[in-house]
Parts: sequence; structure tokens; C-alpha cells
Amino acid sequence: MDEISPQHPRAESLRIRKRIVDGFKLGLVVGEGLAAHGRGEAFDYFLGERTTREARKAIKAAAALLLLAENPVISVNGNAAALVPEEIVELSRATGARIEVNLFHGSRRRERLIARWLRKHGAREVLGVDPRFSTRIPEVHSNRRKVDRRGIAAADVVVVPLEDGDRTEALKKMGKRVIAIDLNPMSRTARAADITIVDNIVRALPLMIDAVRGLSRKSRTELRKIVEDFDNGANLAAALKAMRQRFKQG
Amino acid sequence: MDEISPQHPRAESLRIRKRIVDGFKLGLVVGEGLAAHGRGEAFDYFLGERTTREARKAIKAAAALLLLAENPVISVNGNAAALVPEEIVELSRATGARIEVNLFHGSRRRERLIARWLRKHGAREVLGVDPRFSTRIPEVHSNRRKVDRRGIAAADVVVVPLEDGDRTEALKKMGKRVIAIDLNPMSRTARAADITIVDNIVRALPLMIDAVRGLSRKSRTELRKIVEDFDNGANLAAALKAMRQRFKQG
Repeated sequence: MDEISPQHPRAESLRIRKRIVDGFKLGLVVGEGLAAHGRGEAFDYFLGERTTREARKAIKAAAALLLLAENPVISVNGNAAALVPEEIVELSRATGARIEVNLFHGSRRRERLIARWLRKHGAREVLGVDPRFSTRIPEVHSNRRKVDRRGIAAADVVVVPLEDGDRTEALKKMGKRVIAIDLNPMSRTARAADITIVDNIVRALPLMIDAVRGLSRKSRTELRKIVEDFDNGANLAAALKAMRQRFKQG
Repeated sequence: MDEISPQHPRAESLRIRKRIVDGFKLGLVVGEGLAAHGRGEAFDYFLGERTTREARKAIKAAAALLLLAENPVISVNGNAAALVPEEIVELSRATGARIEVNLFHGSRRRERLIARWLRKHGAREVLGVDPRFSTRIPEVHSNRRKVDRRGIAAADVVVVPLEDGDRTEALKKMGKRVIAIDLNPMSRTARAADITIVDNIVRALPLMIDAVRGLSRKSRTELRKIVEDFDNGANLAAALKAMRQRFKQG
């Protein structure tokens, strides 16, 4: 029905928005997720709707950290599942990371819907849905958070696309290394994570898969150097500066 | 159910969001509208969730232009109808502007729902729903846009809250004078309009009604002077500057 003309200057952004709305209709995404997506759109707009040089650096460091990890896990919520299901599965394959459904607005039904959706897109295993493996970790402002004993609870590195600040801080307190994908460089998630990719997940994940493949033959020493050379604070400051530039051009 | 504590730092913003979500449940708002609202929330956040001095100036000029207009029309979409139905009706009464339903993601059913909703809130007449009066105007990147022959097609001044850039540009090409309410001072709508109110529609409309009442006894010469003295480019630059400040604090 709603055909988006490819000539529309915001065609790509409108196409992505349509994917979230489709996910909403399928029950993967909640209303709050739609509003959160819109907030992301505004930040992406400030970013120029492109992957910055800083984001590329963060993506490379994230790829190196994932290759070094013993038990990496990709934490997936409704929005991530709706936007990039195939890319999540591909990243999981390329890195050996397990996939875990982890929701802020959780419900058993939605967890199962998302798990089925990911399997439909090629995932062989999806954690976070079997209550026999469920355990809880302390979280500051929300209910205690449910995680999978085989997944996030046991992970050394967790990828959190589109995550809430409390959750990221909770993961940090448990000693995990966190890779965040967050369009807001000022968010608590962005600041709490070890590596923050300030980019749209739709652009960032394919680049991350490429980066993992590009680095797969490097030695652990080389990979460690890439991670150590990455300065998240400086990278966030640069991302913020790029956004500020847009305001000046306005 | 979802009670919002008045102590919550973002209580007002959450209350407004609830109105959009309620509108979605009623079928007035589409999923894309929820995302668009979230996008607006982010811009409002940068604005400090307040009406700036610049916005007040634009509101005054808009009120003067509406009082000068021969055939003013308020173009209403789902989000505007959900957020400020009473204010739309009140502004229409105070200025003699006709109300027209005009949707980006259009459907006959939703048009009728919105018209009924506006009537429920006091509107005596709602244009844009009777196919006998429907005509089309050229629009660049989307399908040709449907308008009412008695409304937007015949208007000299059109108020477009929350409008798409293509539509605003199409109206300008037809020689209309456009008053936009848009939280993004860099948008094509903001730049194409004659008077752009960079403010949340929820705050701006009541102020616009007050301004119309305050100016209603002024002569046409005085009103014309107010409109002529208003510089939209300078006003947008000032709004942008206000937002830039927030980024610096980040």
C-alpha cells in the first residue's frame, strides 16, 4: 500500500521505519519500541544518516573484541529483531556468538515470537526463552532482569544493540565487556559500554560482519592491540562533535 | 493502567506520548506516526521542552497572518488530531479557518475516523473526506496528493502542523502561504514555510489561540506590519542555536 518513492530524500529512513512498523504488526515490537525508533531517527538525522569514521573505528574494535571473546553473546530485543534479523544470525555465525532474546518490556509470548522470527531467518539456537535456564541479575531501577544461564549470565562479551542504560550498567557491574550500538552518544548505555558504535544498526551490522571476516586471520596479539588502541571516550566525543556540525550547517 | 508519576522528570513528555498511543489504539494514528512522534520527542528534548522566545515571535506572526487570510485552512493529520483536537477546533473558530483532514499514509477509513474525532471535539465541518470535492495537486516524490476543492485547493493560507517536506513544498509551489509547526528547524518543511513555529504542537496551539485573540482588534495595517517584520530564516537560525546549546552541555 504505502509505496515510498525512491526519490524521496528520506526514502531510506522511511523504509527502515516501515520495517519497524511491520515488526510491530507482527508482535515483535511494542509501541514503546516505535517511539524509541523515532528518537533514534532524530539522532541519525544529526549524524547525517551515514556511518562516520569514528563509527568505523568502533566497529573494527568491536569485531576484534568479538573474535577474542570466549563466550560472546548477542542480546536481541524486538526492534533489533525487526530491523536486522539476518544480520544478527550472520554475525553470530561469523563470531560464534550465541543469540539471546532479552526484552525490556518482556512477555513470554513476545520472547517466543522473536525467537521464532530469528529461527525463520536462519538462527539454529536462540537463548532466553527456556524458563529452565532462566536466572536473574540485579538491576537498579527496573525489575530484576531475567537472563539465560547459558547465555548472558556466562558471557564475557555481550553485544547490546539498542539497549537501556540500566541494563548496560548492570552488565558492566557483572564484569562483562559490553559492545553497544547506540545512536545517542550521550546516553548512559553509550557511556557505560566498553565499545560504543554510534551508528544506525541497519548500517553498522553489515559492516561489523565484514570487519569480523577481515580480521579473522589476525593473531590474538594483533586483535588485542586493536582493542587496546581504541579509546571509547575520545570516540564518543568525536561522534558528538560530528552531530554538532550538523547543527551549525542548518 | 499506565499511571505516570508527576515526579518523573519526563512526566509531561510521557503524558503527551500516551495521547499519541491512545490515538493509535483508536485508529487515528498509524505506526509510522508513533515513530514520527518519537522523532519529535528527541527534537523537543534538545529544545529543552519549552517554548522559546523565537517560537513566541513566530506564533504572533502566524496569528497575524491567519487574521489577514481570506481562506485559511488548518491541515490535520492523525498525530495532530490525537494530540490537540480541541485546540484545532478552537483555533478554527477564532480565525474562521476551515479544517481539512490530509494524510500522508492515507486511507478512507482513517480519514473518516479522524473527521468523526474532530467533530466529537466540537468541529462543525471537516473537509477532506467527501470524495465529491476531492481534487489532486502535484507533489514531487510521493503519489499526487489529494486535497479538498473547498479547502486546501482554494486556500490562501494553510497551517500545516507536523507535515512532510514534499507536501509543504507543493503548497508553496501553488502560491499558498504556509504556517508550519515543526520541531526540526532544519527540515524541508521548516525551511519552505513562510512562518515556522519550532515548538511542540501541544504547547504552540494554545499560545496561537491566545495570540489570535490578542490581535483580533488590530487593524489590517498593524497585522501586516507584524507579518512583514517577521524573518523566518533568522528565526530558524535562532532556534537552531538554542538546540546547539543543549548539545554542548551533553
